Amino acid sequence: MKKQLALYQQRVNDALTHFLTSHQTAPTELAEAIRYATLNNGKRLRPALVYATGEALGMSLDKLDAAACAIELVHSYSLVHDDLPAMDDDDLRRGVPTCHIKYGEATAILVGDAQQTLAFDCLANGTNLSDKHKVSMVQILSQASGTVGMIGGQFIDIHSEGKLPSLSALQKMHQMKTGALIQAALLLGACQSDRFDALRPNLAYFAEKIGLAFQIQDDILDIESNTETLGKPQGSDEDADKATYPKLIGLDASKNMRDTLISEAKECLTKMDIQSDFLISIAGYIADRNH
Amino acid sequence: MKKQLALYQQRVNDALTHFLTSHQTAPTELAEAIRYATLNNGKRLRPALVYATGEALGMSLDKLDAAACAIELVHSYSLVHDDLPAMDDDDLRRGVPTCHIKYGEATAILVGDAQQTLAFDCLANGTNLSDKHKVSMVQILSQASGTVGMIGGQFIDIHSEGKLPSLSALQKMHQMKTGALIQAALLLGACQSDRFDALRPNLAYFAEKIGLAFQIQDDILDIESNTETLGKPQGSDEDADKATYPKLIGLDASKNMRDTLISEAKECLTKMDIQSDFLISIAGYIADRNH
Repeated sequence: MKKQLALYQQRVNDALTHFLTSHQTAPTELAEAIRYATLNNGKRLRPALVYATGEALGMSLDKLDAAACAIELVHSYSLVHDDLPAMDDDDLRRGVPTCHIKYGEATAILVGDAQQTLAFDCLANGTNLSDKHKVSMVQILSQASGTVGMIGGQFIDIHSEGKLPSLSALQKMHQMKTGALIQAALLLGACQSDRFDALRPNLAYFAEKIGLAFQIQDDILDIESNTETLGKPQGSDEDADKATYPKLIGLDASKNMRDTLISEAKECLTKMDIQSDFLISIAGYIADRNH
Repeated sequence: MKKQLALYQQRVNDALTHFLTSHQTAPTELAEAIRYATLNNGKRLRPALVYATGEALGMSLDKLDAAACAIELVHSYSLVHDDLPAMDDDDLRRGVPTCHIKYGEATAILVGDAQQTLAFDCLANGTNLSDKHKVSMVQILSQASGTVGMIGGQFIDIHSEGKLPSLSALQKMHQMKTGALIQAALLLGACQSDRFDALRPNLAYFAEKIGLAFQIQDDILDIESNTETLGKPQGSDEDADKATYPKLIGLDASKNMRDTLISEAKECLTKMDIQSDFLISIAGYIADRNH
């Protein structure tokens, strides 16, 4: 699995590098800041899910590059904006200074804006894609990353600091903030397949399970890992007085919940008759990862 | 012309209101802030250009609504982000408190992000549009609003404060910052027409002329108008030590340049054989407007 993940990471990094250097007339310093915020040692989990889902359904990788790049650009823009002083105010991301620390706040706002624009640009100009599939992809990505998904979740998150929500409210927030984009990765990978309409509900279910497990593991790591391994400050949830699963239900119950979610996700894959060792192992990886 | 503009304004305001209230599951306060930043007494110049260009080429208005809404959402998000403390730090916009003054900085960042997402959502889900035209529209809008257009121009602008650029550098910056989106309005309006490929170069030329004239008039108004009429602080360019046409070539030469550009734009319309009283008058309106 780790070998396959490394291959997917390499592929999306190459595709992103190619895409980001093809806009020759952009201001040099802005282009550099966009590359800084995009081409780093991110886990590339979402692009890997795009590739793995597509491959499991018989798609060739060159029909998945645009979606892989686009979803990473959206994820990456959300990190740049979430790190801003007015939001989470983080100085460190993926082991290096955050975009606004390195380039200033105004540039970081524009970098995030541009990454979002580039994501849709990338889909609309994707090679080897029919117009029908380009449109589906823009629909999936805009829905998942908008007010009913990622942005809505982030809004709820920043307005919940210092409050202790119910478990279901916390799950709803995470389903929007991180789950929706993980779900989009599965849907983007699958949407060119003839089986897409039939599989869609189960893909969404699988994504919801691993998305929540991923978030719970994030909360656990914020307690149990260290700054060097994480590439961002350990304990920052506690410092920001954020609602987390460990805070709400305790550390052990959080680990149990994470493991149950992973089991349910794996069962769902079997039900869908999707042959993908990678997708099976990625579910396990989400629970085991240390950063 | 003013009557026609009012009709277009009303139409895009209705379409935006309908579109923005159809996302029922978004967090209530976020949805309210997005409506606040979008549904105001903006001039709706870009949607009007979409409608007028499309109508001049025989399109029905219901095939132009998605593009009209999308371009206004992009324009509007750029204003929300440009007004932020880290950017232009403006308190007043279109006569009312800016989004971050009313809702706080974090929400304003998310509102701008969401408006951009909604723009592409709106195009991809536009009614009465073929997949081919949806893809063309996403391509046109992402190109015009990205690093080689609006965002790139804004980047150059904020990094030029306190410096006096050459006239050609100032024109290049404005062509990117405001010209590219005005050009996109014309192209979005025209792209469903059979004549689109043939007309595209002249539409771009016309847009470049009125875009620059629009910017020069903005600079002139910042000197000659007053805060109440403008709906934003008069003299803010001077306060921010911004490079403007009057500062670079003087007020009279700026007015002459604006008038020459408008004449060239009108000639270009005749050359294209586009029958549109509205487009002819809009060119004049750009020079005459007082806010």
